[in-house]
Amino acid sequence: MSVLPGEVLAALERVKTHLQNVGSDIRPQSLREAVRYYIERPGKLLRPLLLLTFSYTLDRRSVLDLRIIQAAAIVELLHVVSLLQDDVMDKHDERRGAKTPRALYGDGRSIVASDWLIAESIKRALQLGPDIVKYLADVAQRLSIGQALDLDGRYDEAAEFKTAPLIEASLVLPAMLLGRREILDSAKKLGQLLGVLYQYADDYSDEKIERREATELVDEVKRALSRLRETMGEAIAPFENLIRLLLERAASGDLTVARSLIT
Amino acid sequence: MSVLPGEVLAALERVKTHLQNVGSDIRPQSLREAVRYYIERPGKLLRPLLLLTFSYTLDRRSVLDLRIIQAAAIVELLHVVSLLQDDVMDKHDERRGAKTPRALYGDGRSIVASDWLIAESIKRALQLGPDIVKYLADVAQRLSIGQALDLDGRYDEAAEFKTAPLIEASLVLPAMLLGRREILDSAKKLGQLLGVLYQYADDYSDEKIERREATELVDEVKRALSRLRETMGEAIAPFENLIRLLLERAASGDLTVARSLIT
Repeated sequence: MSVLPGEVLAALERVKTHLQNVGSDIRPQSLREAVRYYIERPGKLLRPLLLLTFSYTLDRRSVLDLRIIQAAAIVELLHVVSLLQDDVMDKHDERRGAKTPRALYGDGRSIVASDWLIAESIKRALQLGPDIVKYLADVAQRLSIGQALDLDGRYDEAAEFKTAPLIEASLVLPAMLLGRREILDSAKKLGQLLGVLYQYADDYSDEKIERREATELVDEVKRALSRLRETMGEAIAPFENLIRLLLERAASGDLTVARSLIT
Repeated sequence: MSVLPGEVLAALERVKTHLQNVGSDIRPQSLREAVRYYIERPGKLLRPLLLLTFSYTLDRRSVLDLRIIQAAAIVELLHVVSLLQDDVMDKHDERRGAKTPRALYGDGRSIVASDWLIAESIKRALQLGPDIVKYLADVAQRLSIGQALDLDGRYDEAAEFKTAPLIEASLVLPAMLLGRREILDSAKKLGQLLGVLYQYADDYSDEKIERREATELVDEVKRALSRLRETMGEAIAPFENLIRLLLERAASGDLTVARSLIT
């Protein structure tokens, strides 16, 4: 049995269906294949999953709202952008046990595909309102700062900017879309901490980060979660369950958890 | 004496001042340098120049409007994005007689800098309205299709998509911002033709395109310009002057004309 409510899992299926149509009518074929590569081979869908679960805790019926489904699709599309670009920057020829788009189609097509997807994400975000577009542009600029810090070898500083903004967005977008201004700051803080933790767990396996730092961060996440419970009450339980499971895996340096949650 | 009105040249100076501030407070320095490289070493500023001159023909006072200045800055920023990415895709180590950002800072920083600039362009475009953002997202997707066609070696088809959309935007944006719906279609058509001509002139020097094709296109541009004069009357004269000068250079396969116009 899954730790997640059935409504969230059903919403995730709708997000997947939504994503299946992205770029399916692009000509030329070379661009279409590069754009659709990671869409057709989805990963853990952690960001959509966080977004839907958090949205569900804010309003049980919100996961039936097309705007929430669209937001979940957008965070995944922006994640795909970062994968395409990462492959080029780090010269990855393999990811998820298969050849990368850059290995198959060349660096140029991966860059062009990421451009197309950024523009597509903007178009979709515009349907959610200009404030959402502005927020996502901020997210994108922080991500680019994170990548630059990473290229400079400043891994400690990079963690806050590299993965965190898009995980933060997975909590902030539902709060914005559902008009819950009173929890915006705490959602943002928790999202950032989760993002840094996720980056740490990744870096931990690369031995860039010490276990002690990750443990301290886990405590911080728990405190942020408690503060959010003070505002939201028992409604937050499904999200807490998801995060607690993520924290357990984080403690063992393994955050590749989401796939097991959704099957 | 310049072929362009003094008000247009004054507006171009304001655009330059505007651009000088872009990204000046970015940390880390590595990202700032990559972002600002082509901003500090501006090229011909053809797109801002077309935009300002066309805007001036629509409404003489519009070149004093901050929104028009911002639009001119945005088309230049998007052009800078395309330069940064082109360098990476085509492995250019030199451009405009100097080392490229990719040669100086590496492919990764050029990609990350282009991401930062795309997000910055979106933020600036949001101040002009969501319809402007949507249009520019369309432009970006057509540009990515053009780049993909170019990578596929389909140069004839690429011409319409590769350079043309951003030159088209230089005519469409003022028409949109000044609420001149009645000329939107003809502005778009003329912009596309000019863009393809510009791409042809570029390809002509690479011997990808025959002179005959460029000559036919010049005739098409002249016809589109005549049609626009039917709607706009004598007001279009300054823009006509600029285009006629561009056409003369095009006939000799040389479109690197803008710098001589603005000095």
